[in-house]
Amino acid sequence: MAMDFIIPRTHATELLSSKVVSNANFSRKEENLPIDIKENLAITKCSGETQANLASVITHYVETLNQYSLRNLGYPTNQNFNYDTLASLLHFHLNNAGDPFLGSSFSLNSTRFEVCVLDWFANLWEIEKNKYWGYVTTGGTEGNLHGILVGREQLPDGILYTSQDSHYSIFKIARMYRMQCMKVSTLVSGEINCVDLKALLLAHKDKPAIINLNIGTTMKGGVDDLDLVIQTLQECGFTRDRFYIHCDGALFGMMLPFVEQAPRITFEKPIGSVAISGHKFLGCPIPCGIVITRLRYINALSRDVEYIGSRDVTITGSRCGHAPIFLWYAIKRKGLIGLQNEVRKCIMNAHYLQSRLRNAGIGAMLNRFSSTVVFKRPLDEEFTRRWNLACKGNIAHVVVMQHVTIEMLDSFVAEFLQKRSIWFEDEQFQHVCIAKDIGSGNCGCSMHTIQCHD
Amino acid sequence: MAMDFIIPRTHATELLSSKVVSNANFSRKEENLPIDIKENLAITKCSGETQANLASVITHYVETLNQYSLRNLGYPTNQNFNYDTLASLLHFHLNNAGDPFLGSSFSLNSTRFEVCVLDWFANLWEIEKNKYWGYVTTGGTEGNLHGILVGREQLPDGILYTSQDSHYSIFKIARMYRMQCMKVSTLVSGEINCVDLKALLLAHKDKPAIINLNIGTTMKGGVDDLDLVIQTLQECGFTRDRFYIHCDGALFGMMLPFVEQAPRITFEKPIGSVAISGHKFLGCPIPCGIVITRLRYINALSRDVEYIGSRDVTITGSRCGHAPIFLWYAIKRKGLIGLQNEVRKCIMNAHYLQSRLRNAGIGAMLNRFSSTVVFKRPLDEEFTRRWNLACKGNIAHVVVMQHVTIEMLDSFVAEFLQKRSIWFEDEQFQHVCIAKDIGSGNCGCSMHTIQCHD
Repeated sequence: MAMDFIIPRTHATELLSSKVVSNANFSRKEENLPIDIKENLAITKCSGETQANLASVITHYVETLNQYSLRNLGYPTNQNFNYDTLASLLHFHLNNAGDPFLGSSFSLNSTRFEVCVLDWFANLWEIEKNKYWGYVTTGGTEGNLHGILVGREQLPDGILYTSQDSHYSIFKIARMYRMQCMKVSTLVSGEINCVDLKALLLAHKDKPAIINLNIGTTMKGGVDDLDLVIQTLQECGFTRDRFYIHCDGALFGMMLPFVEQAPRITFEKPIGSVAISGHKFLGCPIPCGIVITRLRYINALSRDVEYIGSRDVTITGSRCGHAPIFLWYAIKRKGLIGLQNEVRKCIMNAHYLQSRLRNAGIGAMLNRFSSTVVFKRPLDEEFTRRWNLACKGNIAHVVVMQHVTIEMLDSFVAEFLQKRSIWFEDEQFQHVCIAKDIGSGNCGCSMHTIQCHD
Repeated sequence: MAMDFIIPRTHATELLSSKVVSNANFSRKEENLPIDIKENLAITKCSGETQANLASVITHYVETLNQYSLRNLGYPTNQNFNYDTLASLLHFHLNNAGDPFLGSSFSLNSTRFEVCVLDWFANLWEIEKNKYWGYVTTGGTEGNLHGILVGREQLPDGILYTSQDSHYSIFKIARMYRMQCMKVSTLVSGEINCVDLKALLLAHKDKPAIINLNIGTTMKGGVDDLDLVIQTLQECGFTRDRFYIHCDGALFGMMLPFVEQAPRITFEKPIGSVAISGHKFLGCPIPCGIVITRLRYINALSRDVEYIGSRDVTITGSRCGHAPIFLWYAIKRKGLIGLQNEVRKCIMNAHYLQSRLRNAGIGAMLNRFSSTVVFKRPLDEEFTRRWNLACKGNIAHVVVMQHVTIEMLDSFVAEFLQKRSIWFEDEQFQHVCIAKDIGSGNCGCSMHTIQCHD
């Protein structure tokens, strides 16, 4: 190859000039892409690619994304944002390695923005500035990783209790951290069953309790009852020094404070940490999140790292400097009033969807304070993919976020009804009762009457 | 407040309308910002902020970043990139939750790009497509979290061995994973001391060994000798099924394959995983990385998650969809030839800096294959901050990356010499010999002659 004469042979050039060229089959999954896009996508050449060729791949990709955006119903990611004002920041690598409150010797950081965002959340969750610690994470999972680690370091032989409807990251974390984990059953709403929790706590009274609470659950948007959990702990004889509560508030942790008469997640109650996702309700191009905990727990965990001129007390170390600026921008631009209006609109539209489905004879559940509408899983995989529905067992859900319009919901329901009429012509598809998943008042099958859930 | 009449009172509005307004003191550190910027930065208002006001904060911030960029010498982050072609992607939240090879039911993903990037690295590290697994991480630490977890799940009672010069994340991970950890001493170069490793292995022969290797170390760029470590394991009687080697290749893992006669990091040798940072050599606005491991290890770890239509086998779950596209673009645009030229230029410029320092009587070490120049820590904190130098104990370093030009180095050395002449006028500052840190051949003190290290 020509390059051998231009530059010295190194391990990389020997290896890649012989192997990569044959590596045009770039993905394990079958792709329906135009041939020229396929070839441009694969990394097969030794010399650099022209910007024009790369731009054409991106243009094609953006067209696909635009199509998908029109029918993005199942995942709680707000796609309705505009960060054009921040475009110039893409010219910098920004890195908030270390403790945001101490800054870092790496000067291309955004810790000033990060601290503004953290202070705002500390206010939201009612903990004083000099009593809290937190950071902007890479997403809900990192927030859970951090909160549960803080809990474990406080109570090293604590047992982790979490409901069966918890996010998959919680069970993974228990394994990573070598913690004993008790799975607690749930009510139909998805909330943790405190009767079951009580039985488990009583059976393991000798060990402290680390409790993960879902604010709310991934599939049903069920909000665990914080007050009842605290009461249960007290009834079982767990004093304040023998339990730690982490609140996984991925989506609703951000929405709940803006809902009238909703239960309060607050550090005025004996909780240890709260984590939410930043890309869910607030909307952000990249996954991110916030975790807030009590400052006094952190000193036990941290370690000074001279190299970065800070202390190492986060999970990931090098941290994205852009994410805090996206979050700062979103909060500043919308303001409290804007955020509250968005929450109200999402919940109103969720009620609209539930009514449309019920009126068409499709059972649907919508928990109080929630914008997650749960219904029977569509029988056609292609249809669920087309609308980006998230499914589990017999149920599917739509999470009504800011980009979900009434028109989008109308179009979804119309197509759903049309498809159902086709599915049920085929005798192999049977009407399944999902009363055990969403309650007999919601299931919509012929055996049960549809009643308003809330 | 006016808002109370417009929208219903919720927990958030009650709380924040009373508290946030007084929260203008936004940071724990003293800041020298213009008052109007300070006020605009803090999140104090209930109503949304105008775009113009927010844009003015960003403009001011970008000016500061531009100043810092001119003197960014101490951190291994390539600031020389241009991703303007990808700007339109900032309009989407992209999320690669789950296993990149299985895709995800969330259709706004970039797993096709991710798999292209992973295949390219699999080729670089010589492992066949059907035998490897990997993903694009949030940075080097997540790669280490994953690699060491894979090792621990293979060898549950394994002891983690790592050198004292390892990245701080390694010791944190040992604690998170509740693993016994042995700290091994290093040679002057920063490489792991295999004599000490051997003694430790022999003293703990009853337990399997999980070894973290530094390719190279954070402060000195010392590359652990993979072949010698494997030989040491064999000499101590550790068969292939009783050890696991994770290679932390944060910066040099990407550079080494492009250096003539450099040692080879390859899956043809008995290693378990390799992790590198994507934002270091390749350059990326946001922290990211790559981890590659053997596919057969992954099946033991993974868990199907119906909700995302994929399996959960990563650390973070929801993963950035933009990072793989940045990496894909960088590799495609530069090509192998471009990457090789960049590596050569960085190393040449590092040699230039070492010569300039030595010629001025300042001892400086530059490990073979490395672009990290180590020298005596400047006595003035303001000077180290100004040039973004990373310091540890008696030493500091410059990592010569793509954005570091000869002019920048000349300017740095000139200022350094000028400052030194001032520091040493003051008798309280004494010349310290740093032979124990960088070797008597490099220290440059009056007791030792300066000799060429490599």
